[in-house]
Amino acid sequence: MGTTDAHGDRRSLWAWCLESEEPTDAERAALARRLSEQAGAPIVPVPIPDLADAILRRPRITVPRAMADWCSTETWTRAFHTYGSHVTDRTRAFHLDFETPPDVVAEPRNEQELASTLDWCVDRGYVVVPFGGGSSVVWGVNTPEADAVVTIATGAMDRVLEVDERSLAARIQAGVLGPRLEDQLRPLGYTLRHFPQSFRFSSLGGWIATRAGGHYATQRTHIDDFVESVRMLTPRGWWESRRLPGSGAGPSPDRIVLGSEGTLGIITEAWMRIQRRPRFRASAGVAYPGWPEGAEAVRRIVQSGLTPANLRLLDPSEAGRAAGMDGVQALLMLGFESAEVPQGDWMAQAVAIAREAGGRVDDADVLVDDGSGRPTGRGGALGAWRESFIGVGSGVGTGVETGLGMVADTFESAVTWDRWPDFDALVRERVEEALRQVFGHDPLLSCRFTHVYPDGPAPYYTWAGVGRPGSERTMWAEVKAVAADAVLEAGGTITHHHAVGRMHRPAYDRQRPDLFADVLRAGKAAVDPAGLLNPGVLIDP
Amino acid sequence: MGTTDAHGDRRSLWAWCLESEEPTDAERAALARRLSEQAGAPIVPVPIPDLADAILRRPRITVPRAMADWCSTETWTRAFHTYGSHVTDRTRAFHLDFETPPDVVAEPRNEQELASTLDWCVDRGYVVVPFGGGSSVVWGVNTPEADAVVTIATGAMDRVLEVDERSLAARIQAGVLGPRLEDQLRPLGYTLRHFPQSFRFSSLGGWIATRAGGHYATQRTHIDDFVESVRMLTPRGWWESRRLPGSGAGPSPDRIVLGSEGTLGIITEAWMRIQRRPRFRASAGVAYPGWPEGAEAVRRIVQSGLTPANLRLLDPSEAGRAAGMDGVQALLMLGFESAEVPQGDWMAQAVAIAREAGGRVDDADVLVDDGSGRPTGRGGALGAWRESFIGVGSGVGTGVETGLGMVADTFESAVTWDRWPDFDALVRERVEEALRQVFGHDPLLSCRFTHVYPDGPAPYYTWAGVGRPGSERTMWAEVKAVAADAVLEAGGTITHHHAVGRMHRPAYDRQRPDLFADVLRAGKAAVDPAGLLNPGVLIDP
Repeated sequence: MGTTDAHGDRRSLWAWCLESEEPTDAERAALARRLSEQAGAPIVPVPIPDLADAILRRPRITVPRAMADWCSTETWTRAFHTYGSHVTDRTRAFHLDFETPPDVVAEPRNEQELASTLDWCVDRGYVVVPFGGGSSVVWGVNTPEADAVVTIATGAMDRVLEVDERSLAARIQAGVLGPRLEDQLRPLGYTLRHFPQSFRFSSLGGWIATRAGGHYATQRTHIDDFVESVRMLTPRGWWESRRLPGSGAGPSPDRIVLGSEGTLGIITEAWMRIQRRPRFRASAGVAYPGWPEGAEAVRRIVQSGLTPANLRLLDPSEAGRAAGMDGVQALLMLGFESAEVPQGDWMAQAVAIAREAGGRVDDADVLVDDGSGRPTGRGGALGAWRESFIGVGSGVGTGVETGLGMVADTFESAVTWDRWPDFDALVRERVEEALRQVFGHDPLLSCRFTHVYPDGPAPYYTWAGVGRPGSERTMWAEVKAVAADAVLEAGGTITHHHAVGRMHRPAYDRQRPDLFADVLRAGKAAVDPAGLLNPGVLIDP
Repeated sequence: MGTTDAHGDRRSLWAWCLESEEPTDAERAALARRLSEQAGAPIVPVPIPDLADAILRRPRITVPRAMADWCSTETWTRAFHTYGSHVTDRTRAFHLDFETPPDVVAEPRNEQELASTLDWCVDRGYVVVPFGGGSSVVWGVNTPEADAVVTIATGAMDRVLEVDERSLAARIQAGVLGPRLEDQLRPLGYTLRHFPQSFRFSSLGGWIATRAGGHYATQRTHIDDFVESVRMLTPRGWWESRRLPGSGAGPSPDRIVLGSEGTLGIITEAWMRIQRRPRFRASAGVAYPGWPEGAEAVRRIVQSGLTPANLRLLDPSEAGRAAGMDGVQALLMLGFESAEVPQGDWMAQAVAIAREAGGRVDDADVLVDDGSGRPTGRGGALGAWRESFIGVGSGVGTGVETGLGMVADTFESAVTWDRWPDFDALVRERVEEALRQVFGHDPLLSCRFTHVYPDGPAPYYTWAGVGRPGSERTMWAEVKAVAADAVLEAGGTITHHHAVGRMHRPAYDRQRPDLFADVLRAGKAAVDPAGLLNPGVLIDP
């Protein structure tokens, strides 16, 4: 199930954790004192909410008796499925603001139950929101305004059904969350190796629907390349592509599902390309005098044809905060891994380029695991960063700050190298100015490269400000609008891997070819004639 | 221009060459004598045709005066653009069978002229066939039955417009043929490195429209991954995607253009990812006791995470014919290349796996070029194969055999490893039986892997038979139908990189998800409401 762990511990309504891991009132009070000092004004923490105080609109529709086993109208379930995991979502949930909950949450346990549920919705004209792990940070699963909304959660379909060891592929139910997926592959010696930051609470179907960005910094950056075939239920019936390692027969049917964000159908299964678990590893941390030097080194490495699993660059601010560096230098994290062949030679070539580009790396910090299992890259600056990365999910904090006037968010893009570093300069100038105006203090804005391509980097920005409790959403919206404008104006994409959802719709509408939107709209109408699936995301009917 | 070389030498109407390179009557007579002996019946060669003897339907429409500069109704031009390059096309052309020539062939020199041409066609309701290099072997550019057909050839738009050296990308006009494209990049030190067998007479736009398979045997097998953005004219106007190194903003707009085979629009430009010209190379030929052992070795190498540029396996028949081997052993050709880093370590790892899998390779045959320019892989079995590959285009011979009752063709697929070698066994059994029945002699059928994926190979079959002159097309059709059925039944794709065209339509219709066809149909209607673009290819309105 998507909303509880194996011990029955439930997901938090307002924090990126289980209920048992939620921050306490005491922790929140301590933070409030610190923030009060910073803001120069007292910040009084609202007590942690009790859902018993929430007033949810009554379900406007009735579940047929035959579907009662997998459909719920309970308050907690409807509240949880009202939102995704963005800071605005969690702030609303914290304030028990569940204005538009789904009327019914269905969690079918198999394809037959799913088909009955979708048939029911289509017959009655109910809007359907497909829901995987609920990790969306772009309002991708938020209940839209409609006469009746049924959220269909896929979390009960969470098994690895088949492993094809000759082809290194597995047939996997789409509702499975990251950890349980890997738990099922691990005993067989395999891994999907797709580790988005949201790994803990995001699903295979969600990754496919949103073109999630994963583990690999180069080459196989998105989930796209791991998809061998997809099975999906649409209002007009089943869609299933043939398992093929490659094909040139017309446009790829899978590539229109990838990124469809629940507008075309509900993904139920996929054949995914898996791998043997890596045995050989090599890692290194390389320090650069500054951010421009680090970026130039990354460009040279990724254009060398080397495809390291890790090629992530932290700007001086992130390198200082996350890896204890001096606030001036940038940190490049380099990593190679393989189940089959030693990685030392690769690393030696990458380090040689990294040094030629002005990087400083001690030989002792180039760690190579020859397959003996000696751990590498767990100490020093790299280890510190790894800890901080794993502690955070989807750019959402643990929720301790929720409702205290502090707003933190991330935005990400990808842009060709010819526009870098101008892209970075424009984005920083505009967003820092907006942060100053909105929060009235020196802004916190930092950047790292999460993925890198021969033709350009994917920069990932993090910002935070301390403002007025209760105004978090409007403060956030002002900054977000400026950031989105800057990203588009500077030639980037509105999202490299966070998806479009309802949040990025205005920017997305400016970015994609208009005629492609027409094609997408017509294509949607072909499989979802009544426009019931996730309306407001990507396109309007 | 697409139909003449720099010296004004015109393309042959019936052979894969320029007119000056066409086989002579004497060469044909010599072959006819050999075939007569084989067939045990006299085969009398028809003389090489003279287009003056052809009777072409008169153009059914009149070119407006303003468009006269780039529109032609001349006999040769219309005859040439009636067909692609499949053996059935060239046989028809040889027999001066131009039953349905286009009424007008437009070759606009710029986007304005192209837009005028398409506007004219849309206004009048004329069917439009986009035409790149005419290398289609799947009837992709053949003039369909319609009241009026205008073929729009893109060959006059053949320039590299811009090179972005920082991002390693170039803006290139889509009409350029392979050699001229590389000629423009070479002086700057760059290459696209897309070398389909049809390289000489195929265009960038055609590669994109058909998802052409190229140089790389692994990882970047299709043109798809080299496309950064596309500019395309549709009946409803311009479609242009943003230059982005990567994006997760909705389904990729480029991926619906890739493989659209001229049904959505006419591609005019693309930003393509280019590379520095390779300096470091390594190559090796590995002999295996037989075909199954070779295939298993390929599987192990491609699943090791190594991504050699060359990983091509010839079955004993091809290894014997093309590389002078003993007819029992299979030959694996291994190659690595890079502009930036030495490739010896990669090769050593690949050779180690190749040997573990039972391959025989002398150390002396592992050639490594350390950047000094010493050529590798030009001698021995590898060199012989390279010559034979470059001598042939698109599975079409030089045409010397045309009209002599000999039929040769290729078909290709891709299939997951779990279905291999059963796939191969079924395909060989069915096709050999068909060849025996149709041609009445022991069949020639051979196979190689042109591209390989971690989850499966892309096998490429070549067959030939000697039958009755004049019946080539029906004999071909009988074999083709059996081959297509076998490929689908055994779980493969009807085409890995030859595209669908009109030839593979019936099989394609069985392969793709029906609902995807509905999406494609609706999408086409959105940009081409009257259904004028390349009707009969991929989908019907």
